[in-house]
Amino acid sequence: MPDLNRTHVQESPHFTDEEDRRHVRDRLIFFSDAVIAIAMTLLALELPVPTGETDAEVWHSFVELLPEEYLNFVISFGVIAAFWMAHHQFFRKIHVVDTALLRYNLGWLFLVVVVPFATRVNSEGGFVLGPVLYAVVISAIALLMVLMARHATRAGLLRPGTPPHALRGLLVGAGTAASVFLLSIPVSFASPS
Amino acid sequence: MPDLNRTHVQESPHFTDEEDRRHVRDRLIFFSDAVIAIAMTLLALELPVPTGETDAEVWHSFVELLPEEYLNFVISFGVIAAFWMAHHQFFRKIHVVDTALLRYNLGWLFLVVVVPFATRVNSEGGFVLGPVLYAVVISAIALLMVLMARHATRAGLLRPGTPPHALRGLLVGAGTAASVFLLSIPVSFASPS
Amino acid sequence: MPDLNRTHVQESPHFTDEEDRRHVRDRLIFFSDAVIAIAMTLLALELPVPTGETDAEVWHSFVELLPEEYLNFVISFGVIAAFWMAHHQFFRKIHVVDTALLRYNLGWLFLVVVVPFATRVNSEGGFVLGPVLYAVVISAIALLMVLMARHATRAGLLRPGTPPHALRGLLVGAGTAASVFLLSIPVSFASPS
Amino acid sequence: MPDLNRTHVQESPHFTDEEDRRHVRDRLIFFSDAVIAIAMTLLALELPVPTGETDAEVWHSFVELLPEEYLNFVISFGVIAAFWMAHHQFFRKIHVVDTALLRYNLGWLFLVVVVPFATRVNSEGGFVLGPVLYAVVISAIALLMVLMARHATRAGLLRPGTPPHALRGLLVGAGTAASVFLLSIPVSFASPS
Repeated sequence: MPDLNRTHVQESPHFTDEEDRRHVRDRLIFFSDAVIAIAMTLLALELPVPTGETDAEVWHSFVELLPEEYLNFVISFGVIAAFWMAHHQFFRKIHVVDTALLRYNLGWLFLVVVVPFATRVNSEGGFVLGPVLYAVVISAIALLMVLMARHATRAGLLRPGTPPHALRGLLVGAGTAASVFLLSIPVSFASPS
Repeated sequence: MPDLNRTHVQESPHFTDEEDRRHVRDRLIFFSDAVIAIAMTLLALELPVPTGETDAEVWHSFVELLPEEYLNFVISFGVIAAFWMAHHQFFRKIHVVDTALLRYNLGWLFLVVVVPFATRVNSEGGFVLGPVLYAVVISAIALLMVLMARHATRAGLLRPGTPPHALRGLLVGAGTAASVFLLSIPVSFASPS
Repeated sequence: MPDLNRTHVQESPHFTDEEDRRHVRDRLIFFSDAVIAIAMTLLALELPVPTGETDAEVWHSFVELLPEEYLNFVISFGVIAAFWMAHHQFFRKIHVVDTALLRYNLGWLFLVVVVPFATRVNSEGGFVLGPVLYAVVISAIALLMVLMARHATRAGLLRPGTPPHALRGLLVGAGTAASVFLLSIPVSFASPS
Repeated sequence: MPDLNRTHVQESPHFTDEEDRRHVRDRLIFFSDAVIAIAMTLLALELPVPTGETDAEVWHSFVELLPEEYLNFVISFGVIAAFWMAHHQFFRKIHVVDTALLRYNLGWLFLVVVVPFATRVNSEGGFVLGPVLYAVVISAIALLMVLMARHATRAGLLRPGTPPHALRGLLVGAGTAASVFLLSIPVSFASPS
């Protein structure tokens, strides 16, 4: 461990101290995980309980809630889970963290935190705003991940020895996700259910 | 630490780099813990406060809520706590994590996140849907844990030197839990309280 | 690191493998921290917003909510913070974790999770149930911490070299807290406000 | 690692054992991160869903909620994110943690936990209490961070080799934030919207 660098840590654009470097990266990852885990779990908090006077009515209510409320919950959980895996894949390749990456990541977390809200708006059903807001939020998460990966590559934050194509899978996945959700917007306007 | 492997981490089916291996495992465990902790704590969020005009009425209301609302909360807390212990036991034996295990684990967490919702549905009382949904969710958590353990054994993810019977206790426990809750389903249909 | 022990980890009553030992302890601490942090933050979730038509009315509403709702919140936050510090002090002295300690800790967390609920019941005001339930929950948390410390001492879970009186401060503090809250119970019955 | 110190850890004002030192610091950081992450995510929990009978009405409702509810949410998220970054910067320079720092940090977390509540009060709109409470809470967070930094410098808790001016940026930022929000208080009284 290069202890000699300790005295000028704050002058350095990157964190040259090994313990400090890990500390910064791990805290960023940890904090992100906590936010993602909470957003994921809060999705389930507002799921409506089926109601009714008889078994048949309760069952009917459950089946009615299934396509909109419950399905939207499952989709949002899956979307956040997929983004968690992408975040995970990305940060496995990150060696050092700079302030810009911290800020990108906080912006990214902001959008993740908005997902439960966008899911609720989308579950209201029958209006254009719901699917449009949802598509905008999800696309923005994907696009921000692309920007984050581009910044990390250009600023030399990747682990030494990481080949140039290492983030390609991530970029293709995020780009595809953004495109699909952005393309869903005109569809929402064309056919408000 | 085998630094030599760093350049071909992403080509390797397993993660051969020791630091990376631990990072992946620890992040998976951490993320799971956060989700489980939140699901556990959210259980208590919607507990109804006893109401009434006099001490006697408030006490009566408390006693009335006890068997359904409060008991269901205690049971669900115990169930999630038991699954946390099983998850803990299991991952102590895990040496490396592959993408399939990450996915299994996310599916498992999805079901854990559903437990507070299933508890609320179950607390409505008097209808078949509640206990059936509850039994299905708990059994599915137990069964997914069995599948996860089977995958880990077959894919060689266990710590070197772990004897073949190391996960037996876990499998027997999870299998028993799944059986008990699945067997409770026909009982619910036979005797809706 | 004693790698030789790896093959018989599961037969051992304690965890003799250093990496495994730390992993178990750290995961227990981490999980506890997450649960405590969530319980602490959820306290603020149901704080009532002051209402009114004019500035004077809103201010009046705020002042009225102050002694019961807001003060109860501050007290509960302080109580959980104090227990977190005690938990922290205690686990700094823990070297190995056994299954009994895991179970004690889960029971302890159960009671911490109940604190926001007990606070809400207590904030209803004017009835005996609120302060009694609150006193029972807080005393039980303190008593369980005493039991946990006694178990750790007897089962030899403390760090080597920890002197016998190391946990004395913790025990005195927890015992005092339990006594104070238990003594408040007859007071509640004598003078329901 | 200075194992020799183990027997008198509890007598020492600082924690001289390296493993123990890191454990204490990391647990404090971890716990803080969990609380901050939860407070941040809970901000979004009570965002009102726009309502209406037609697309135009839903859109209108959304636009109406934008300046107060949604903007307040974005500002509060930004404020907590900025404080997280400041906390992060500060604790990167912390070498040892003493009990006073633990207490300061718990007080600081208390105020962070109050932010979602203050945001809700502020979103009610049209009354002086909202902006005043909000300004008081945010200023108090900034001031407490200044006190924490001053204590850490005086008690010698910083990493060896940290130059005296290392925390200057933090202090200037926190001082500015406190001043801005405190100055907003007389403005609130002068011009209740």
